Amino acid sequence: MALRSSDPQELFTAACAGDRASLARLLSLIERGGDPARVVGRLSYPKSGNSYTVGFTGAPGSGKSTLTSAVIGHLRKQDLEVAVIAIDPSSPFTGGAILGDRVRMQDHATDPGVFIRSMATRGHLGGLSLATPEAIRLLDAVGRSWVIVETVGVGQVEVEIAGKADTTVVVLNPGWGDSVQANKAGLMEIADVFVINKADRKGVEETRRDVEQMLELSDLSHDAWRPTIVPTVGSTGEGVPELWDAVLAHRAYAEASGQLRERRAFRLREELREIVARRLEQKARELCVGDEWETLQGEVLSRTTDPWAAADQMLRGVEA
Amino acid sequence: MALRSSDPQELFTAACAGDRASLARLLSLIERGGDPARVVGRLSYPKSGNSYTVGFTGAPGSGKSTLTSAVIGHLRKQDLEVAVIAIDPSSPFTGGAILGDRVRMQDHATDPGVFIRSMATRGHLGGLSLATPEAIRLLDAVGRSWVIVETVGVGQVEVEIAGKADTTVVVLNPGWGDSVQANKAGLMEIADVFVINKADRKGVEETRRDVEQMLELSDLSHDAWRPTIVPTVGSTGEGVPELWDAVLAHRAYAEASGQLRERRAFRLREELREIVARRLEQKARELCVGDEWETLQGEVLSRTTDPWAAADQMLRGVEA
Repeated sequence: MALRSSDPQELFTAACAGDRASLARLLSLIERGGDPARVVGRLSYPKSGNSYTVGFTGAPGSGKSTLTSAVIGHLRKQDLEVAVIAIDPSSPFTGGAILGDRVRMQDHATDPGVFIRSMATRGHLGGLSLATPEAIRLLDAVGRSWVIVETVGVGQVEVEIAGKADTTVVVLNPGWGDSVQANKAGLMEIADVFVINKADRKGVEETRRDVEQMLELSDLSHDAWRPTIVPTVGSTGEGVPELWDAVLAHRAYAEASGQLRERRAFRLREELREIVARRLEQKARELCVGDEWETLQGEVLSRTTDPWAAADQMLRGVEA
Repeated sequence: MALRSSDPQELFTAACAGDRASLARLLSLIERGGDPARVVGRLSYPKSGNSYTVGFTGAPGSGKSTLTSAVIGHLRKQDLEVAVIAIDPSSPFTGGAILGDRVRMQDHATDPGVFIRSMATRGHLGGLSLATPEAIRLLDAVGRSWVIVETVGVGQVEVEIAGKADTTVVVLNPGWGDSVQANKAGLMEIADVFVINKADRKGVEETRRDVEQMLELSDLSHDAWRPTIVPTVGSTGEGVPELWDAVLAHRAYAEASGQLRERRAFRLREELREIVARRLEQKARELCVGDEWETLQGEVLSRTTDPWAAADQMLRGVEA
């Protein structure tokens, strides 16, 4: 019954009762955005706040998916249920997601205790930065106690999304230099746990020293937590229990110190501000159509008016 | 005199007369945004539309700065004046730009026919996506006939910025696979010219075949221009005249086919839409302060209201 429904309330009730197909459909509603996404958000919101989110990020090729898969295996051995949101990079132009080695996680696809969902970035940062917390809240509301958010890449967007977790794990490799060159500082600021994956290769100790040196240089004095550095081999599972222990240690610290409460409050405020901004953008799109808009564009193109004067014109009603 | 002035009109007059310090100060005004940036924009706008913009992008370590420096040298031999805007990646958190190998371009720092300016991304995509076209228009208005925009990285943001040029050059290396893995499709869509730099290394022909294969797979049928592939060695200057010939060939095509006019009109429409959106975001920031905002935040945090209802409340006046 629930499978046939497209009513968010019915789907939500079914998802809370454990129906995976309904949960998947609700996530699609969130991904598509608009009013239905908002309805799902309002259903989830009062029931959320109980699950814990762990972000994983790292350069493409760092073996992050294999590692995440091993982490899922570790949690399943303890009979913990887990949900994974995998953020796929995609072309800003075609919207085509690059699925890459996500296949590796399919080991867990038939396990009812594991729920895996890919979300594509589609070139709309705004969309994703709102859709991700909503997806997390939905998984939270339907009772998943651990939510893993995995992003591919160490660019600004990936780092921002992974940095919005309760605990953030940054996956590096021995000889990590080049692949993360452009955003080392960003990684330093979001990492609660560093993993040196593929630690069966040469250069683990050098990488550890590099990271420690970067941590020294970073201004972390405002925060008593010093990121842990854990070597792992994702393909064999070596180091995965230690990685998870590091996550649990950070969680204990975050809960006891008030950091978790602060981070969540900060994120929620940011999200609220973004909801307001997006609604105004929607308003802008509504304003940017029609005859007046066409006329103004023509004037800007022919340089008889400039873009700022044209914007003033469009915003008359709103900015009054 | 101009050096002491902070009046945009005076600075603009001096910059048009060739004063580099005034030009630098105007670019700082643009970078900082707000009302002064807008004044500069309105001064530049009617005088712009005459220069040609070439975007260079590629993964960190692809030798892009050395190549750009060689291209500048090639243009200077022909007595052409050139301006370079180098977009620096920076941490979304600290705002610290990574200057990296920009130093190499300092070869041209004392040449009055070359103007080089770094702009940091500062984690504000919106800010940069507006500041870059404004900076280009200013350089255009003061009479630079060639403007090169160089971005470090092949992530979504870098690709979007480089893709806004009149001709876009994508710099690859032999064995390019890993470094650009996450965004191959995006690169295919923006490239008018591919450069295989460091072509004294092994694997040039394989890389050429790779690119050709990707081009086959891309849906480029809508566009009669087939991206050129040029091998170069930036450090020796080998292939640089051929690279520039490829840029000139694309320019000739773009001008004759109407592609240039279309692209510029499209970019201007996008920019106008973004100006409207940013102004509304500014409005959102103005709304999201004060007692009512604090109270609403508290209610959302305690889950007595949800973020969407709170946003409705804040937007009462605007969305009417």
